[in-house]
Amino acid sequence: MFIESNREIQLVRRPVGLPSKEDFQLVSRPVAELKEGEVLIKNLWLSVDPYMRGRMLERKSYIEPFGLNEVLSGGALGEVVESRNELFPVGRKVSSMNGWREYFTSTGDDIQLLPSTEIADQAFLSVLGMTGMTAFTGLTKIAELKQGDRVFVSAASGAVGAIVCQIAKLKGCYVAGSVGSEAKARYLLDELGVDAVVNYKTAENLQDSIAKACPEGIDVYFENVGGAHFEAVLNLMNDHGRIAVCGMIDQYNATAPQAGPGNLSQIIIKKLRIEGFIVFEHWHDYPAFVEQMMQWIEAGKVSWKETVFNGIEQTPDAFIGLFKGENTGKMLVKLA
Amino acid sequence: MFIESNREIQLVRRPVGLPSKEDFQLVSRPVAELKEGEVLIKNLWLSVDPYMRGRMLERKSYIEPFGLNEVLSGGALGEVVESRNELFPVGRKVSSMNGWREYFTSTGDDIQLLPSTEIADQAFLSVLGMTGMTAFTGLTKIAELKQGDRVFVSAASGAVGAIVCQIAKLKGCYVAGSVGSEAKARYLLDELGVDAVVNYKTAENLQDSIAKACPEGIDVYFENVGGAHFEAVLNLMNDHGRIAVCGMIDQYNATAPQAGPGNLSQIIIKKLRIEGFIVFEHWHDYPAFVEQMMQWIEAGKVSWKETVFNGIEQTPDAFIGLFKGENTGKMLVKLA
Repeated sequence: MFIESNREIQLVRRPVGLPSKEDFQLVSRPVAELKEGEVLIKNLWLSVDPYMRGRMLERKSYIEPFGLNEVLSGGALGEVVESRNELFPVGRKVSSMNGWREYFTSTGDDIQLLPSTEIADQAFLSVLGMTGMTAFTGLTKIAELKQGDRVFVSAASGAVGAIVCQIAKLKGCYVAGSVGSEAKARYLLDELGVDAVVNYKTAENLQDSIAKACPEGIDVYFENVGGAHFEAVLNLMNDHGRIAVCGMIDQYNATAPQAGPGNLSQIIIKKLRIEGFIVFEHWHDYPAFVEQMMQWIEAGKVSWKETVFNGIEQTPDAFIGLFKGENTGKMLVKLA
Repeated sequence: MFIESNREIQLVRRPVGLPSKEDFQLVSRPVAELKEGEVLIKNLWLSVDPYMRGRMLERKSYIEPFGLNEVLSGGALGEVVESRNELFPVGRKVSSMNGWREYFTSTGDDIQLLPSTEIADQAFLSVLGMTGMTAFTGLTKIAELKQGDRVFVSAASGAVGAIVCQIAKLKGCYVAGSVGSEAKARYLLDELGVDAVVNYKTAENLQDSIAKACPEGIDVYFENVGGAHFEAVLNLMNDHGRIAVCGMIDQYNATAPQAGPGNLSQIIIKKLRIEGFIVFEHWHDYPAFVEQMMQWIEAGKVSWKETVFNGIEQTPDAFIGLFKGENTGKMLVKLA
C-alpha cells in the first residue's frame, strides 16, 4: 500500500493571542514505503488539548516548542493498515503522540497497542488517556485528596475537570466547580452529581459566588484556569489546603503581561501548598490508573462527554474552540 | 516583692501602612501579688518580629489579632525574681511569649526554663529560638533542602535569612541572597561565606541581578519578601524547584491591594512546589533543632548578629525599624 496523499497540519506562524486558522496550513505529503520492522498507521481520532498552545510559542518550557512549517503533534488513536512488524498486526489499534496527520510510519517505538475492551477506542484519548490520567494524578498524587475534602475545580466541565469532579465524588468529597454556561452547569449537577456549580460568566462577583458554592471553604483546588479564579480561591482556601496546578488557560493567549493576584500572603496565613505538575512525568503510574479507571467505567461510575469535529482539515478549528469554551468534555477530531 | 510600676506597651490604634509610634502607648500597671504556685518574671530581652504586623490587623489569620488597649505580646527572655513555685527558682532564666512588658506573673504553664549553656541568653530569642527554628524548618522540612541545591534567600541578612544562608552552606549548597545595603552584602559575603549577593535597592533590574547571582538557576527559594522578588525568582527557578514561603514583608504595610506576579504559569512549566508555613505548628521538632543548632554554634559553624534597642519605651521604634531595614540579624530590645 502506497499512500500518495497523507495530509497533515503544520504550524506556519506562531500565534499571537487567540490562535487563528491562518496560523496553520494543511499540507499533502507522500508517505515513504515501509522498511522491514515498520508499520503504517492510519489515524482515526486526534486529540487537541490546551497545553499545545504553550508549545506554539518559542520559549523554554517543559517540552520543545513546535517547529514552524513542521507537522504538529498530539495524542492520536489509529489502526495498523500495513505491517512489516509482527508485534503490530494489521487491524490492531494503537495510541501515539503522532497526531495532526492522517498517516504515519513507525518502528513500533512510539506507538502503544490498545488493550482489548468494549470501551470505545477514542476513550484512550480522553478518560482512559492523558486527560483522565491528568485528573487522577493531580487529585490523588499532587493534591493528596482525602475522603471528606471540600474540592473546587475550575473549568469543571472540560475534559480534565469533568473527570476530576467524578473521581472526587467517588472518593467521598464535597465537589463544586466553575463553568461558562448554564448547559455545562446542568451537565455537572444532573449527570455528574456535582454538589454546586458557579457560572463564572454570569457571576456578579466570582469570589462571592465560589464562597456560596463552597460554604465550608476549600481544601483542595484543582486549577485549570488561573487569573481571577486563582485569586478568588486563594481567599477561600482552608488551612493546609492544597492546590494542584494543572493549567492556567486564562493566561495562554495573553499578549501582554497580566497582573497577578495581590493576595499571595494567603499562602503563609493558611499554610497552603501549591504544586504544578506535568502528567508525562508520572507516566509510570499509567498502568495502575488504567486498571482503576476501567473498573470505574465498567461499573458505570465514571462517564464522559466528547465534542467532535470531523476531518483533518477541521483540527485547527477544534483546537481554537478550546479557548472559546466550545467543548463539553474532551475535544476530539474524527478522521474519515 | 511588690512591683509598683510594671510598664508595658499597648496597641491603641490599628496601623495603616507603616506603623507609627502613635499606634502604641506605654502604660504603667501594678503587678498582682504572687499566689501559691506562681512566679514573678522580670523580662531582660524582648523580641520584635515582622509577623507581629499581621496580628495588628483585625482579620482572620493563623493567630488571633492583638486587642486594642491591651498589652502586646511576643518572644521574651526573663529571669525569675520571686517564686512560689519550686520548679522555677529565683535566678533562673526563662523564655516566654509574654514580651512588650517589663514584668509578668506565671503559673509556669507559659514559660520554659533555658538550658544551661555558655551561649548568651538572648540567643534563645534568635538563633536558638523562633528565628533559628523558622530558618531550619523552612529549609529542611518545607523546602526539603538537598546537598548541592542552588539556594536563593530574600532578606538574607535578616534574623531568619542569615541563619538560612548558614544552614544551606553547612548542607553543601550554593547560596545567594538579596539585601538592601552594601554593608549587609559585605556581612554575608565576608562573614557568612555566602556565594553571591544582590543589593535590591541598587539593582537596575532585579531579575537580571538575581540571574547573575544564580548562574545555574534556583532549586530552593526561601521567601521572606514577596512582591517583585517573588515574581523575579519564579522566572529563575529550576524544574521541580521548591519555594518555602516564610514571609512577605513587602506586603505587610500595603494600604491597597497590590497587583501580584503575572507569571504564575511558571508553576506548571517548571512543576514548582510552593508552600507556606508557620513555625509554631512545627514546635514538636524544637528540641531536636536546639540540639543540632547548639552543636553548630559550639563548633563555631553558625554565627549571628543582633541589632539592639534599649528600654521598654523603645520597643515600638525597634518594631518599626524592621520595616525600614534598620536591622542586621535579630532585632532585640534590651531592658534595663
